[in-house]
Amino acid sequence: MAEAGSKQEVYIGVDMGGTKVLAGVFDTQLRLIGTEKVSTKSERGVDAVLERINRVVRDAVDECDLTMKQVKGVGIGAPGAVDPGSGKVLFAPNLKWTDVPLKKDLEKRLEVPVFIENDCNVCALGVFERQLKGKFKHVVGIFIGTGIGAGIILDGKLFSGFNRTAGEIGHMVIDAGSELKCGCGNKGCFEALASRTAIFKRLKDEVKRGEKTVLTEMLGDDLANMRSGDLRKATRKNDKLVNKVIEDAAYYTGIAVANIINVLNPEAVVLGGGVIDALEGEMMSIITEVAKDYAMQGTFKGVEIIAAIDADNVGIVGAAVLARRESK
Amino acid sequence: MAEAGSKQEVYIGVDMGGTKVLAGVFDTQLRLIGTEKVSTKSERGVDAVLERINRVVRDAVDECDLTMKQVKGVGIGAPGAVDPGSGKVLFAPNLKWTDVPLKKDLEKRLEVPVFIENDCNVCALGVFERQLKGKFKHVVGIFIGTGIGAGIILDGKLFSGFNRTAGEIGHMVIDAGSELKCGCGNKGCFEALASRTAIFKRLKDEVKRGEKTVLTEMLGDDLANMRSGDLRKATRKNDKLVNKVIEDAAYYTGIAVANIINVLNPEAVVLGGGVIDALEGEMMSIITEVAKDYAMQGTFKGVEIIAAIDADNVGIVGAAVLARRESK
Repeated sequence: MAEAGSKQEVYIGVDMGGTKVLAGVFDTQLRLIGTEKVSTKSERGVDAVLERINRVVRDAVDECDLTMKQVKGVGIGAPGAVDPGSGKVLFAPNLKWTDVPLKKDLEKRLEVPVFIENDCNVCALGVFERQLKGKFKHVVGIFIGTGIGAGIILDGKLFSGFNRTAGEIGHMVIDAGSELKCGCGNKGCFEALASRTAIFKRLKDEVKRGEKTVLTEMLGDDLANMRSGDLRKATRKNDKLVNKVIEDAAYYTGIAVANIINVLNPEAVVLGGGVIDALEGEMMSIITEVAKDYAMQGTFKGVEIIAAIDADNVGIVGAAVLARRESK
Repeated sequence: MAEAGSKQEVYIGVDMGGTKVLAGVFDTQLRLIGTEKVSTKSERGVDAVLERINRVVRDAVDECDLTMKQVKGVGIGAPGAVDPGSGKVLFAPNLKWTDVPLKKDLEKRLEVPVFIENDCNVCALGVFERQLKGKFKHVVGIFIGTGIGAGIILDGKLFSGFNRTAGEIGHMVIDAGSELKCGCGNKGCFEALASRTAIFKRLKDEVKRGEKTVLTEMLGDDLANMRSGDLRKATRKNDKLVNKVIEDAAYYTGIAVANIINVLNPEAVVLGGGVIDALEGEMMSIITEVAKDYAMQGTFKGVEIIAAIDADNVGIVGAAVLARRESK
């Protein structure tokens, strides 16, 4: 049960994206009390974004009828290469940031301890600690949304690599002969085959080519404002086009999971993010089956492939886990 | 300089393959004194193979005019999942071995300390310690021969994963749409696109299809007994078919290297094995260029792609490094 109002201590988890910043208020048991959202507006410059993060955190706390004095720590998952030690975002292409002292600056504004990590690392950490209770040694978390990223936990610790960019799994090439272009400029990347962006693009292309789908009845011929949840609705109406597109995305995801199992041989692979949250029932069994087919037999033995619980919220949950872990 | 005969101490490095076992005698500075080779004959059963390893080690020592008393340790790289702690080969599909107490048994036969590891791990360890002098933190060694495997060093230590099978990079799918079959039964694996087996198969197929190459003048129309060195000779005669096939293999290798850099972000990727040993000049610049193209910019920064020195001998060198490291 939640503790009594004024004495309650909370952690804030912040999921900082290229388009929006989401802040979640969590009790010490990591139960979500409330959230607040603001657009990032990175085009206004670093200082403006920092002030917006300050504001969304304070607003979230206020909306929950709490005060900043009750906040034990703020965790932030930032998109890009992050150095948790120095508290800097080394570079974040989506935000056009280089060497931003995110921790130091926000601690000044918020007057509470702030801890930062790469956004996918934060997601993996959250799943590892809250869902898996730290029971596995080596875990890879793959998060499928607008883009695709991963957080890697080896021997119970986050592994970030040389430039703190490990886990760029979305840009692992899995279909070199593909004509499908990725945002990074290359072709055949996992992200170009199975992200929400890739799924939506293919559906729009197929509709333009004259393919039929209930999505046009739901959203109009241009499939405007499509969301992952619309795809779930379409599959429940047994829509052939949507079924096929989702099956293909799940197939490529299965290959990517097998690649990770063959290369890193983790004990568990956890899948999360908005696409998995909306389409877990449609995708997970295909992903698991394909991964099993493509992974080497001895390598796959005993490895678990799991969907993240509360997959759409892994970002704020993980950031709160980071705050709780680090402010101890 | 080598020490005086009878007092000299040596390490033995054994590269245990599916078809042959190679033993190298090294001085304490890891200079190669001599080698001996025997066929594996795994079809004769575990005991016969163990006795053959015993024999090839003793023969190698004898050929160098040394005695077993001068051997400080024997290192063995075995093909499969190896548990160095228990000294067991957990499973080795090529040998049809399961739970073989390799260390214990050979220590009885050889009467000297024996240390075992997975063959690709041993290769990576050898390159890491002898060539790179341990100066990088995170290194992936990729070894291209009949098959393709990798050894992963993170934070200066070998990383083997949950089932001790990490590094099965040859079965990373990089061209899902490919029709090229891999020995593992799948299609589009790195090994099916760039191993010696894949390169030779493609050359034979192209010749059958009527393509011209100097290789047929050198080896006959069936390209019998082809070796990697023959390809080098052909490229030096500017043979168009061989050039094209090698370029393609290097291209896929570059993609695989980029995948590893994107996922693990090591500080260095080292390429070794018989194919690289024979075709370093032809392949390395293409591999590096393609890897740079496919790796994310921030991820690639400062990462080195290096050819292994003495690439064909990395197996025995690495095993000797293991022996020296462990018998200290």
